[in-house]
Amino acid sequence: MSLLKEINSPEDLKKLSKEELPTVADELRHYIIDIVSQYGGHFGASLGVVELTVALHYVFNTPNDKVVWDVGHQAYGHKILTGRKDVFKTNRRLNGISGFPKITESEYDAFGVGHSSTSISAGLGMAMASKLKNEKRQIVSVIGDGSMTAGLAFEALNHAGIAKTDILVILNDNCMGIDPNVGALKEYLTSISASHYYNRLKDDIWNVLGKIPIGGNFTREMISKLEYGIKSVIIKNSNFFESLKFRYFGPIEGHHVNKLVDTLQDLSVIPGPKLLHIRTVKGKGYKPAELDQTLWHAPGLFDKITGEIFKKDTSKPSPPKYQDVFGHSIIELAMANDKIVGITPAMPSGSSLKFMMEQMPDRAFDVGICEQHAVTLSAGMATQGMRVFCNIYSSFMQRAYDQVIHDVAIQNLPVVFCLDRGGLVGEDGATHHGCYDIAYMRCIPNMILSAPMNEIELRNLMFTAQLPSTTNPFVIRYPRGEGVLIDWRKPFEEITIGKGRIVQQGTTIAILSYGHPGNFVTTAIEQLIKEGILAPTHVDLRFAKPLDEDLLHQICKTHSKILTIEDGALQGGVGTAILEFIYDHQYQQQIKEVVRLGIPDKVIEHGTPKELHHLCYYDTQAIVETIKKMAL
Amino acid sequence: MSLLKEINSPEDLKKLSKEELPTVADELRHYIIDIVSQYGGHFGASLGVVELTVALHYVFNTPNDKVVWDVGHQAYGHKILTGRKDVFKTNRRLNGISGFPKITESEYDAFGVGHSSTSISAGLGMAMASKLKNEKRQIVSVIGDGSMTAGLAFEALNHAGIAKTDILVILNDNCMGIDPNVGALKEYLTSISASHYYNRLKDDIWNVLGKIPIGGNFTREMISKLEYGIKSVIIKNSNFFESLKFRYFGPIEGHHVNKLVDTLQDLSVIPGPKLLHIRTVKGKGYKPAELDQTLWHAPGLFDKITGEIFKKDTSKPSPPKYQDVFGHSIIELAMANDKIVGITPAMPSGSSLKFMMEQMPDRAFDVGICEQHAVTLSAGMATQGMRVFCNIYSSFMQRAYDQVIHDVAIQNLPVVFCLDRGGLVGEDGATHHGCYDIAYMRCIPNMILSAPMNEIELRNLMFTAQLPSTTNPFVIRYPRGEGVLIDWRKPFEEITIGKGRIVQQGTTIAILSYGHPGNFVTTAIEQLIKEGILAPTHVDLRFAKPLDEDLLHQICKTHSKILTIEDGALQGGVGTAILEFIYDHQYQQQIKEVVRLGIPDKVIEHGTPKELHHLCYYDTQAIVETIKKMAL
Repeated sequence: MSLLKEINSPEDLKKLSKEELPTVADELRHYIIDIVSQYGGHFGASLGVVELTVALHYVFNTPNDKVVWDVGHQAYGHKILTGRKDVFKTNRRLNGISGFPKITESEYDAFGVGHSSTSISAGLGMAMASKLKNEKRQIVSVIGDGSMTAGLAFEALNHAGIAKTDILVILNDNCMGIDPNVGALKEYLTSISASHYYNRLKDDIWNVLGKIPIGGNFTREMISKLEYGIKSVIIKNSNFFESLKFRYFGPIEGHHVNKLVDTLQDLSVIPGPKLLHIRTVKGKGYKPAELDQTLWHAPGLFDKITGEIFKKDTSKPSPPKYQDVFGHSIIELAMANDKIVGITPAMPSGSSLKFMMEQMPDRAFDVGICEQHAVTLSAGMATQGMRVFCNIYSSFMQRAYDQVIHDVAIQNLPVVFCLDRGGLVGEDGATHHGCYDIAYMRCIPNMILSAPMNEIELRNLMFTAQLPSTTNPFVIRYPRGEGVLIDWRKPFEEITIGKGRIVQQGTTIAILSYGHPGNFVTTAIEQLIKEGILAPTHVDLRFAKPLDEDLLHQICKTHSKILTIEDGALQGGVGTAILEFIYDHQYQQQIKEVVRLGIPDKVIEHGTPKELHHLCYYDTQAIVETIKKMAL
Repeated sequence: MSLLKEINSPEDLKKLSKEELPTVADELRHYIIDIVSQYGGHFGASLGVVELTVALHYVFNTPNDKVVWDVGHQAYGHKILTGRKDVFKTNRRLNGISGFPKITESEYDAFGVGHSSTSISAGLGMAMASKLKNEKRQIVSVIGDGSMTAGLAFEALNHAGIAKTDILVILNDNCMGIDPNVGALKEYLTSISASHYYNRLKDDIWNVLGKIPIGGNFTREMISKLEYGIKSVIIKNSNFFESLKFRYFGPIEGHHVNKLVDTLQDLSVIPGPKLLHIRTVKGKGYKPAELDQTLWHAPGLFDKITGEIFKKDTSKPSPPKYQDVFGHSIIELAMANDKIVGITPAMPSGSSLKFMMEQMPDRAFDVGICEQHAVTLSAGMATQGMRVFCNIYSSFMQRAYDQVIHDVAIQNLPVVFCLDRGGLVGEDGATHHGCYDIAYMRCIPNMILSAPMNEIELRNLMFTAQLPSTTNPFVIRYPRGEGVLIDWRKPFEEITIGKGRIVQQGTTIAILSYGHPGNFVTTAIEQLIKEGILAPTHVDLRFAKPLDEDLLHQICKTHSKILTIEDGALQGGVGTAILEFIYDHQYQQQIKEVVRLGIPDKVIEHGTPKELHHLCYYDTQAIVETIKKMAL
């Protein structure tokens, strides 16, 4: 690490000769392997852009020039080269650096990211601003082929093509998102890259030319020259990106750092919108990661020598992830109901829909990074009587909000939204927390909103959602990670829509929980009982909409204080729904106190879920303390 | 109208000979002109697709075959041909038919629309469902070139290209949305259509071929044949849509009904995804509408003979539209602050940003139908110190929700969102009402949410939002249509963020209003005073976030009942925020009643704003009645 050791900023990098750059790339790669194997984090994506990262900071004058990383989990090398080498081991930890670029963290982080496909829009905004301010700078947006499938990226290309600014888009084509990329554009890129595209064109032209009689002054050599000329015409005119008025360059190999340096230097003097297509390998330079790119997207801790990924102790049984319960249960349901279809926008592994995709490939679809399309597609299917389970993470569903309202809710189509990653997700931080969905869904008419407290409830809500008698859009929200039951695979039972359940009958204070945090309540009550404090009532609401009004009337008539708990934003969430109920039904004289626990009104950064629940004050300890105060 | 008179369903249409179709088209066009001139509605778009509409229902077996109209304001001809000729005059009126296709209105309306760019996703969903169910049907999605610029349409193309279903996309290319279409794709389509594209290609190839010596057995005629061959190769391989694995046909003229019939018949037997590019003229067949397509998008009532659009009585001065106040005020502000930029996604006329686009073309941009891009672009500009006024309608902002959260709010960038069409918009109905924004914005950290009660407050909020001291994202929400002040162009004054104002001091009951409905309160109080009822206090909240806590403490300490009023959804809105305040600050014993008026939890259909305010029970009368009840 003799070179990397001395690099604390791009200025240090620029002092090196071009000949030293491959060594820098090599050292950077090993540093990433070193730290991530010990401290965790995203892995394959950063390895794939090591050479690009070195080349970008070598050629461009960052931070005056702006490099916008799309998604940003590939920016570890960038962080290390821009003064964060020593703090890199705090990556994704509470109070440590973020796993994504973040403008408040470094002047080299031009734009905060986490979700995909924003880089061209943001970069174009910077380019237009620089033009208005008469400031000279190069804007570079680095976007993967997976991110390129989202509509936002297309919207930005469509504008950038005519916006008359100098923007360089680098298409980092590795055929992968987290899972393999899908879609027509991906096939197109592959065909360009494998040169099949131009070869096929050449073949076709050859067929035409073949009809020209050869002889006289028209030789095969001339035909060859002709071919060459035609090919360059075609390249200029026929490329997807050229249609959108971008100058297209490539594809070039993305792991030759000096070739990248030369190319970027050439491109930096070409005005207007341009796209450089580079081909990279996700996980490059670490064999196991190259071979199983999905597994090594974010493998957890591992032995960097053997490539062994450290598993949790499995000697004693542990509850399954909610994701796997979803993944297995949808297959059971689909076997009994041939109307069921599964949809995921680019999260087959993360959502565990991959099980169904393997077992029922005709009925489960990864549609790529395109939440909007996933929802409207589901709506279209629903008009034809299908029961679509559209599985989207809470924070990504923000991107399909209009489609939920306009295409599903207004038409009251019975699409099932499995809203994964509801609540605080942990290490991915601010951009990925599922904080807002309860509030943003609750205001929409026709919606049924539910959240299971455990795996069996998840299964039963899924069962209920697909029954013919269920005729509304149906949200089932659950968190990332493990449930609480070992023995979860019970026969399905219908849950009456809008009915909660009393987990524990107590007195005076009623705790109303929504979803998984109900388990924090259970533990808190055990502790309270142990401490000899009068046990409160505990209600597992199960539905945020419609509320269980019968049960709430009963609670309000027999209790004087209410504590609500949810892993969602406090403004407009479930606790708020309870306040609406109280005042709408004139219980305000009866209910003397309502304390609402949940996510406070600020941006929550990264940390473990446990740390964040504590910080946001809705973990078991918070419940115990709050109940003690309320009981005074 | 001899033919149209007899047509009450597509079956009747199919009984006619092909030779009669031009007459049907002609009669249909005149019927639309007739009714819209007298009863109002969208105009130019439907005239542009009269021939297509006749051809589609002539060729395809609707409703088994599905025609999905994108946006849907062009579907008047479709409605008239599918059994709604006689009720067509109730179009967009309370309890009348909707101005857009609507699945509950007719089995011929395959998918409910209103917002753009959903048709390919929805159609693909139908096609995939039909395939799964083994049902044979043709799916046709009709989408305009304006709608094609939104990311959702691209996402759908990208999936449909590989989904192996029979879907026909008809690209209705008229170079227009409401305003002229913009973007690189539009230029591409224009260049294809004008044949410049192929001509240029041909020229380029000619240049290459020109280098081949002619003579011997290689003649100009051969070159011409060669050209033809190459051109067809190029067409097959180089088209934008072909890149996305669609078979591309066209462009063809869209006003020859029999040519359309022949083409559609040919296409109906070709399997797989295919796109037919037709060229039409918005407003076709009504000269004034052809000449000023933006004006005649939805002209209001007019004299169909003279083409005179009936204006409102302008003999006495009337308050301006909020839109125009925005449009003029941003120019005033931008003249004083060179950091100000204006952005609209395809609504320069509707938002009145067109004034600034005319006067300051370098600083005001129509980016096309792409709300997502508009917001992230604004965020990118804001990182470089620009003050962007990003003007988006409330219901369209739903499409940029993730961008607001992820790109603006989490980074706390001071983008100004002018949220036009907040509240019930009237005749456009369910898809266009701005019901949800208060709730969906209120849960997001860092946001400032405001709504002016009149034009001067709008100006002052705009002024405040662009001050250097304002460092947060800033929403200014206002309704469609007229304000209340004739004399509105007053010097700008800063409004302290988070400060409301007492409009009228009263006793016992406090009415807290948000935005324009404050004027309903003013009128109601006048009436109450006239009737001798003790006047309540009236507070113009101005900010939904942050709330004016000082003022609310004062109100809660001196009043015992509160009435809130807002033109937004009641769940999670401003009234709810007040409930949160009351319980968070322990005023529940003091405040014995809170009544919240606003939009109830159901889909609100079309009607005049006045009718809908009445129906939703938050007009002046509702306030008077409620106060009387509360005063008992």
